[in-house]
Amino acid sequence: MRRRSVLAGAGALTSAAAASVSAPAIARGMLKLKMVTDWPARSKGLQSSAERLAQAIHAASDGRIAVEVFPANTLVKALETFDAVGAGVADMYHSAEYYWEQKSSAFTFFTTVPFGLSADELFAWVHYGGGQELWDTLSAQFNIKPLLCLNTGVQMGGWFNGPLASLGDFKGLRYRMPGQGGEVLRRLGATVVNLPGGDIVQALRSGAIDASEWVGPWMDMDLGLHRVASHYYYPGFHEPGTGLAVGINRRLWESIAVSDRRLIEDAAAAEYARGVAEFSANNAWCLRTLREEGAVKITRFDDSMIKAFLVNSKDVVAQAGTGDDLSRKIYASYHAFRTAIMDWSDIAERAYLNSRGLE
Amino acid sequence: MRRRSVLAGAGALTSAAAASVSAPAIARGMLKLKMVTDWPARSKGLQSSAERLAQAIHAASDGRIAVEVFPANTLVKALETFDAVGAGVADMYHSAEYYWEQKSSAFTFFTTVPFGLSADELFAWVHYGGGQELWDTLSAQFNIKPLLCLNTGVQMGGWFNGPLASLGDFKGLRYRMPGQGGEVLRRLGATVVNLPGGDIVQALRSGAIDASEWVGPWMDMDLGLHRVASHYYYPGFHEPGTGLAVGINRRLWESIAVSDRRLIEDAAAAEYARGVAEFSANNAWCLRTLREEGAVKITRFDDSMIKAFLVNSKDVVAQAGTGDDLSRKIYASYHAFRTAIMDWSDIAERAYLNSRGLE
Repeated sequence: MRRRSVLAGAGALTSAAAASVSAPAIARGMLKLKMVTDWPARSKGLQSSAERLAQAIHAASDGRIAVEVFPANTLVKALETFDAVGAGVADMYHSAEYYWEQKSSAFTFFTTVPFGLSADELFAWVHYGGGQELWDTLSAQFNIKPLLCLNTGVQMGGWFNGPLASLGDFKGLRYRMPGQGGEVLRRLGATVVNLPGGDIVQALRSGAIDASEWVGPWMDMDLGLHRVASHYYYPGFHEPGTGLAVGINRRLWESIAVSDRRLIEDAAAAEYARGVAEFSANNAWCLRTLREEGAVKITRFDDSMIKAFLVNSKDVVAQAGTGDDLSRKIYASYHAFRTAIMDWSDIAERAYLNSRGLE
Repeated sequence: MRRRSVLAGAGALTSAAAASVSAPAIARGMLKLKMVTDWPARSKGLQSSAERLAQAIHAASDGRIAVEVFPANTLVKALETFDAVGAGVADMYHSAEYYWEQKSSAFTFFTTVPFGLSADELFAWVHYGGGQELWDTLSAQFNIKPLLCLNTGVQMGGWFNGPLASLGDFKGLRYRMPGQGGEVLRRLGATVVNLPGGDIVQALRSGAIDASEWVGPWMDMDLGLHRVASHYYYPGFHEPGTGLAVGINRRLWESIAVSDRRLIEDAAAAEYARGVAEFSANNAWCLRTLREEGAVKITRFDDSMIKAFLVNSKDVVAQAGTGDDLSRKIYASYHAFRTAIMDWSDIAERAYLNSRGLE
């Protein structure tokens, strides 16, 4: 929550206004950008990362590029950020691409899908596996230039009010899980519920729901989920590396100097590395606190559950890659990259982490 | 290999010269920096990453900061880069901190140690676990400001001229492995050999050595190791996430504008993300080629070997954390962070990769 006081009250150019000025004048002059986010003002991890990105752009440009950050429901309503930026009401958004799945189901591949790419693998696909070009094409239809700027890392499977004895326990379970993960659980018989983050604690406490996923120890404990549920399951198969993105008004992007584009690209990539690190360090410390308190049982989904998640996820994910030509191309690219990188991850990261675990 | 032709012949300020000019003039004027590396001109992954970093700084500053890159043995001799930058003969180096272990064994913790932190975990320790402050203190003794700027990811265990039937096979094995990993193998009875990268192929072909590690499929196949050895073992317990660093002349660093420091910090962090991604994508594609060719057997070290590596690594790594007060502090910080982050990685990344592997 380190909003720059220097920006308070500064009149920001809308991208429409910016686009009407001759390009060189903008290119080397001051640039005042409005960033709208889909996160509450005090959201740890997400809003704080958006603000750190804004500060980094401001600092590296020696104050020439000022980015004013608007939390959800201040300048525009939550989840209307994408349309606002496309239309030039704001200049850039900080959000999760899977929120735009109604526009194209292919957006989901740039955030996360069940049993999909990890944080590092997603960045590798986007930057070295052809992902960025496909994403640019997809988003250009909406006048947006997208960039990866954060990842939460592997999420947790969720909080439960009791143990899961077998796969059968998912039948009738009232489980808050959005998106493709929710569809997988629905196929296993769960009653999938959607609730905003702020309503989960009360719903678990009152018994209105039996289980809910959120993110990981850091963000979950900030919400207070460890006070209202007794069992914490892992891994979060449904969101194995949730990428967040900035989307910039494309006409504005094309009007600014190449050097400013590179500065913003570097700041976004740097924030990806920093954000992954911040989530990971804070999750580690919060997990330690949780273990020390001893009130919550932390358990792995058993193999029969994992296998059922796998079978159903395959169908659900493939479904997102149907539709128009571009969606099929994006799915094909993602799927081919996943096959290749899994083979490498299995003998590298996975084999290493398992070996280290033998100590 | 994308050295900017625009820099050819440009007279670069040495940092000594730079430091003699008044700070504001440097701060907002042109800055010409000499970067010396410890990599051959055509080294894939390492030299190419140093050049991409130089280009990023040049591009984001709109050409105001020009970084001329000198491969090993051009401006200064290989491994004399650290002293050259400390003395102001060059402005910055791109290298691996464990090369300076003769100055302090604690430098090794900022590169990699056997069974140590992965690429993401190392970045998290440095940026969110107190690592950067300790590293700054260590390097300031030598007039250097250090930054992480690349990681190779998990390396491979090495190339062998035949299968390893049991732990006993390490006895008398002539194995090229430098640093702490080499010391672990020495304790298992291997005859540890040190050879420059360029000599490994010939040594394996002639039978002068029985085995050698290098990096991973991408860099190893570029060297031709898959043509002279039949067995490729994993995981590379000795280098589970090898961090590379830029070190900048500290007096120069303190003389430049804060905004230029932030621009360079962002470029280095962005290149960390990009470099990890580039290694990972290329390793995946090279591994596929290796499997398709079918001439090399790719095998995991068995559990008895891994356990022997673990026991011996613990002692060898702890040894690097003895010595002066600062070394002990660095080891204590690294060790405590490793304990906390392992607990999280075990239920996040590791549990996820194992679950995905059940498909």
